[in-house]
Amino acid sequence: MKQWGLYCSRCSARLPFRYQDMKCECGGTLLVEYDLELVARTLTKESLKQRYSSMWRYRELLPVEDSASIVSLGEGWTPLLRMPKWENKLSLKRLWIKREEQNPTGSFKSRGFSVAVSLLKEAGVTKAAVPSNGNAAGALAAYAGRAGIQAFVFIPMDCPSLIVDECPLYGATTILVDGFIHDAAAIIEAGRDEQGWVNVGTLKEPGRVEGKKTMGLELAEQLGWTFPDVIIYPTGGGSGIIGMWKAFMELKSMGFIQGDMPRFVCVQEEGCQPIVDGVHPVSTATSDDSGDDLPLLDGKIIPNPTGMRVPNPPDLPLLLSIVQQSGGTAIAVSKKQIADAILSLGADGISSSPEGAATWAAMLVLSDTGWLRASDSVVLFNTSHAMKYAKLGTSAAIPIIRTYDDYMIYRSL
Amino acid sequence: MKQWGLYCSRCSARLPFRYQDMKCECGGTLLVEYDLELVARTLTKESLKQRYSSMWRYRELLPVEDSASIVSLGEGWTPLLRMPKWENKLSLKRLWIKREEQNPTGSFKSRGFSVAVSLLKEAGVTKAAVPSNGNAAGALAAYAGRAGIQAFVFIPMDCPSLIVDECPLYGATTILVDGFIHDAAAIIEAGRDEQGWVNVGTLKEPGRVEGKKTMGLELAEQLGWTFPDVIIYPTGGGSGIIGMWKAFMELKSMGFIQGDMPRFVCVQEEGCQPIVDGVHPVSTATSDDSGDDLPLLDGKIIPNPTGMRVPNPPDLPLLLSIVQQSGGTAIAVSKKQIADAILSLGADGISSSPEGAATWAAMLVLSDTGWLRASDSVVLFNTSHAMKYAKLGTSAAIPIIRTYDDYMIYRSL
Ligand SMILES: Cc1ncc(COP(=O)(O)O)c(C=O)c1O
Ligand SMILES: Cc1ncc(COP(=O)(O)O)c(C=O)c1O
Repeated sequence: MKQWGLYCSRCSARLPFRYQDMKCECGGTLLVEYDLELVARTLTKESLKQRYSSMWRYRELLPVEDSASIVSLGEGWTPLLRMPKWENKLSLKRLWIKREEQNPTGSFKSRGFSVAVSLLKEAGVTKAAVPSNGNAAGALAAYAGRAGIQAFVFIPMDCPSLIVDECPLYGATTILVDGFIHDAAAIIEAGRDEQGWVNVGTLKEPGRVEGKKTMGLELAEQLGWTFPDVIIYPTGGGSGIIGMWKAFMELKSMGFIQGDMPRFVCVQEEGCQPIVDGVHPVSTATSDDSGDDLPLLDGKIIPNPTGMRVPNPPDLPLLLSIVQQSGGTAIAVSKKQIADAILSLGADGISSSPEGAATWAAMLVLSDTGWLRASDSVVLFNTSHAMKYAKLGTSAAIPIIRTYDDYMIYRSL
Repeated sequence: MKQWGLYCSRCSARLPFRYQDMKCECGGTLLVEYDLELVARTLTKESLKQRYSSMWRYRELLPVEDSASIVSLGEGWTPLLRMPKWENKLSLKRLWIKREEQNPTGSFKSRGFSVAVSLLKEAGVTKAAVPSNGNAAGALAAYAGRAGIQAFVFIPMDCPSLIVDECPLYGATTILVDGFIHDAAAIIEAGRDEQGWVNVGTLKEPGRVEGKKTMGLELAEQLGWTFPDVIIYPTGGGSGIIGMWKAFMELKSMGFIQGDMPRFVCVQEEGCQPIVDGVHPVSTATSDDSGDDLPLLDGKIIPNPTGMRVPNPPDLPLLLSIVQQSGGTAIAVSKKQIADAILSLGADGISSSPEGAATWAAMLVLSDTGWLRASDSVVLFNTSHAMKYAKLGTSAAIPIIRTYDDYMIYRSL
């Protein structure tokens, strides 16, 4: 008998734990429910001090029964980097960046797939498939490789090519789809029975939300068991927001933290902004550059699509209620704002993905408009590695020299 | 008065601490010497349990006076990943990979430059330059950016282009050199006085060795204050080996660990193997593929040069004495062996740089020949991120489909 079950985040129905199919009859999303009193007997603030620097330090709050099923590559416990110079410039009490790109697969997706693939292993699954704008595909490929499970990843063909390339490196059957992420999802659904694929897409199974939950658990622990005032997160399917919100609810129930939840800010790309439209139904703000790629650096461009580009999140009402109940907001940023943010962060030594940079851009706007207050402590999430989005061979502006004299000539031009 | 000085690793001369010029009159390398009794008063096994997951947890063993000078981006305390399946296959007691690519700049070079740039800041330096095969350039660029110091990086033009591209992202003046790393170094020396550049090349200043030392400190702490039997490390200039060896000496002096030092194994590329030639003077083994790039995956190739390609390490005698005194060895591997190792590690979910993969290849050979014994616990270092070495746009083998029917057709081909 498992020590956890499922509950519906919409109608509160309770169900026994299962590995697949997280939709409730009411249309809500099923989430894992733990016996938190039982958990709190062994998972204490004191016991955590002795544990490894891995997200599996919270194992009583992760739905894997046998620790032999855990599939780990060194995920979690990522640095929380303080930005003191910018705290002064922007008059914020505290500003941090959670460097999720330092995960084993170069993105926060490592967390979700470490748990999801552990559950696949526990359930004896041999073939798993995912539709993905990129980072999820790489993470499934890596963790499935480690677990000896066959991975099948379906990626829209205009995704960043390094993200695509890493999947065959991990041994996954890698297929590009001439279409959007929902077209990729439709292919998996069509082949599911015939191929024996288990679909590990967003909110299809319980592991990914639970894995992302560890971002919230970690954040609270790294801040000495306090909440920040504001969390700014690049939101696509939304499982990161759902996971962190769930983390904070569990910590509150266990008596680890009191006080108000952080205000959740969802950041999206202008032009694909269902959460923004849900939070601000009258907003029509789109800038004139939303349709095209913009030059970034020396001819490199931000590729399409990013992980934020999910036109139909699987449970939009849940996301809207989290944002609104927390006193948060949602904001869309333009490609130009993202490109500028990549340069700003770069100048400060931080290599950011477009999604991570979008949170920086959003933070600047919210600081400008006064939505962020001088009393606020703020955490941004850099969810993936800049390098995964690179386009190569276009650094024409980098000079080539042979001698110091050449250098002097170049500098005098 | 600083609480540390310098000592010569060759003639044992003692000197006061200085920020530049680490060559002793005798030709040996000057290293930082601490008052270890003083250090041991506050740096204890117990106190470490309470400290942050960063290499700066060892701050009493790092030569930065004022903690306000510390330039940090979230470096160190990287995962040590156990490889149980391979322990069985190869009959090794324990096998781990230290995932150094999870550092902020995607390589272990973050460690050295976090310390080196902190010292530059402490010394009031405003311009720093480095000759680099890539990862060091990116690390100087990032840490200098964070510190507000101008960085000038000189990189041989055939280095992997993503490594080159990240330097301007961090705001560094980035110059490609039509020549080798020593040609790049010569340009910096020629311009030093006129330009006011401080050269932070290998063994030119005290910070980089001290920063890399933390790999050894961490390893010992992560292994519960024991040494592994064998460390296999991809060696170029050699500061990683020198740093870890120094770490272990300090830990022994402080009474943190007793017993034998690990056997150090230096891995190099066939064709550029000064350490291997020094350890095995009669060896002439080079395979017939050492001259050219070999196809790796779908047309992608391992680019030249890697971080192991340093024909003249600044202090070869010191490296040879460490290897020999520890009972270690040195081994050269071919590009083909490296390419195979990248695929093996990839299939296990680990994205490895050519340098990291070289340690895997070396481990296989040493296991085959019986040099590694069943009683050995072995640690490999994956020093950089696979992505930094990628060549793009050549994944011609990845199919593009629209529907599940297309998938079935593709599979039947
Ligand atoms: C880098 C990156 N950031 C953010 C997101 C969106 O995250 P979530 O699904 O938690 O909303 C994704 C999803 O693909 C992503 O890859
Ligand atoms: C990825 C990588 N591995 C290994 C090395 C060699 O390290 P060391 O200088 O410590 O010998 C380098 C140096 O450039 C490197 O970039």
